Order: sequence, then C-alpha cells, then structure tokens
Amino acid sequence: MLTLYYAPHTCSLASHIALKEAGAAYELKRLDIDKKEHHRQDYLAINAKARVPAMVTPRGVLTETPAMLAFIAQTYPAAKLAPIDDPFAFGEVQAFNSYLCSTVHVAHAHRMRGHRWVDDPVAIIAMQKKVPQSVGAAFDLIEHGFLRGPWVMGDAYTIADPYLFTLAQWIEADGVDPKRIPRVLDHRRRMLERPAVKKAIAQELA
Amino acid sequence: MLTLYYAPHTCSLASHIALKEAGAAYELKRLDIDKKEHHRQDYLAINAKARVPAMVTPRGVLTETPAMLAFIAQTYPAAKLAPIDDPFAFGEVQAFNSYLCSTVHVAHAHRMRGHRWVDDPVAIIAMQKKVPQSVGAAFDLIEHGFLRGPWVMGDAYTIADPYLFTLAQWIEADGVDPKRIPRVLDHRRRMLERPAVKKAIAQELA
Repeated sequence: MLTLYYAPHTCSLASHIALKEAGAAYELKRLDIDKKEHHRQDYLAINAKARVPAMVTPRGVLTETPAMLAFIAQTYPAAKLAPIDDPFAFGEVQAFNSYLCSTVHVAHAHRMRGHRWVDDPVAIIAMQKKVPQSVGAAFDLIEHGFLRGPWVMGDAYTIADPYLFTLAQWIEADGVDPKRIPRVLDHRRRMLERPAVKKAIAQELA
Repeated sequence: MLTLYYAPHTCSLASHIALKEAGAAYELKRLDIDKKEHHRQDYLAINAKARVPAMVTPRGVLTETPAMLAFIAQTYPAAKLAPIDDPFAFGEVQAFNSYLCSTVHVAHAHRMRGHRWVDDPVAIIAMQKKVPQSVGAAFDLIEHGFLRGPWVMGDAYTIADPYLFTLAQWIEADGVDPKRIPRVLDHRRRMLERPAVKKAIAQELA
C-alpha cells in the first residue's frame, strides 16, 4: 500500500492521477497548505522539505514529482505509463517532466511563492508581473515542439501527460492567454475525459 | 557516439563526469555563454530552450540533467551508476537529483540569472540578497539528511554524486558559509580525487 500526501490545487495531482492510471492500491492524506500543515513536525519527519507531494512506500518515502512518476511507471509496468525498457525514450519522458518541474513550475511559483527567493515585498510584486511572460514562453515551447500530440510523447499516453495537465490548469491564473496555446488546451480537454483524471480531481476536492 | 554540448562552470559538468565514469564514447562541443552561443540558430535547433547541457544521441537529443544522468546510467549498466533494476532505490536517486535541479540550482540561479523571473533591476538585487539563505537552507537539508555518506546514496557511488559535486562548487560564490556543511565539503574533496572528475574538469577548462 502506498500513501500519497497531497494538497488540492498543487502538483501532487500529477502523481495522484498516475496512481489511478496504474491501478495502484493507495490511500490519500490531505494537507491544508493554508493551515501550514506541511510544516507540522509529523509531516517534516516524512518530508523535511515541507512540500507536497510525498509518497510513503513500504521501503521508505519518495518525493519530487518526476521521481514519483517514474517510480509509479516502473512499479506498475502493466499500465504502460512510460517506455521503461528503452533508455532513450524513457529519457525523453524524463526530460519533459524535468522541464515541467524545474522551469514551468518554478516560473509559475513566482506568482504565489515569491518569498522563496526574495524578501522585499516590492520585488515580490515585480516578480509576479513577469509570470505571464515566463510561464507563457515555456508553454510556447511545449505548444510548438515538445507536445507531439495527441499525448505529450505522441500516440502513447505516459506519465508526462498527467504532469502537463496539472500545470496547464494554472495558465489562466498565471496570465497566459490560452488562445496562444490551442494544442495544450486540447490536451487539457482530452485529459479531462479520462476516468482516472475525473476521479482523482473529484476525490481531491471532495 | 554521443555529443555533449556544455559550457564551463555550468551544470553540464555533472553529465560530463557521468559519461566519463560510464566509459562512454562521446565528444564535447563547447558553447560560450558570454558570447550567447546557446542562442545561435544552430544550437536552438538542437535545444530550443537555449540552455546547456544537451546531448545528441543516435536516436535524437536529450536535455535536462536528471534525465541525461538517468539515461547514462541505464545505457551503461556495467558502470553501476544507479540501482536501475530497483524502482524504489532508483526513485531515491531521482528524487535527490530532481531536488538539485528544481530547488538547489534554481535558488542558485537567482544570483546570476534573475532576469529569468523579473525585469526590475532593483528586484534583481533584492533576489541576489536572499541567495545565501535559500541555497544555504537547501544545503542544510543535504548536510543533515539527504547525503548519507560517503556517497549521496551511502556506500554506492551513483549519478547523484557528480550532480551534487557540480552544484556544491558554487556554494562559496553563493555566499554560503562552507563551515556549516562539513559533510558536503568532504564529499566535494572526495569527488575531486576521482580520475573521471579530474579529467572532466581539466578537459572543460583546457
């Protein structure tokens, strides 16, 4: 049994969807970010980084969305969530997920979590002003290159898809004009038709 | 044959060391960041993100250090650079590398590449002021938890080691007091004794 520590409206949704797609047995533990539950001592013992997601496995804890997604794909090979026996194709999936993690999500985080990188409140506002541009530029690259269609890697649905879907839910709030990225929007719509996605979202917001 | 596009003093060193440790056949192509060679059309055709590193393989291009490191470990299994047949242990390596990529490197980048996230020059200076704190906090977690010793994952040397080593080279310039992280410093010294590390550094700076 796996336990996923998550918070609604965060990137933990990507791993949650992947667990459902994999048919994994898991339980959910919800953290209230507004109440700073991710800074409570009992959660810090699980994830000293004070972030979601974290996944408790029988062997120990895993964190970081790209690592958790690859773990899910490798642990449930029958679900075919990544080309795990092909190092190059697997590397392409991982490169995409790493880009989402270290560039797209980071650009987005400058809107709501600017305090991670600056103390001055005026600078935080200056950061927020650039989010439409930095997030938009990243989604332009996805729209015009990385997203092959219909799924990120082409015909095969992989762990890259729930991760893209999760971050693409935030584009309007990040100030990116969705009209500029119709293929990303189309992907988002297609994801919303999948039973695993519908169920994961419903469960998180219940 | 693999081709690694790199720039001195950047995170591309991690993949370079891993290629050497793996005994891979590769050639190096150097980019001059100051001359903006990573923005030249011929390089953008290889990596539209205009970043180093990128690795050209017979199958196509891979980017993003965590993905490239995992690819190297999986492609050269005899070098035993990661526990590639154990999804949980592999996930731990990947979680560490993802943390370096999306948190440690990103915190560091606010010192020299603040323009990625803000336009206002005053805000860029405000960002730089916080780098010792944000990079320092990340290295505290590494020092007191993630770095098991003697290598990151314990007794086995893995792809996590050249990556930690690469980012740990920047701590003094980032304003982090090295005395506060003696185990990281010790790891850095131990890395510098490895022939692959010495050769990779010598080759990059030649």
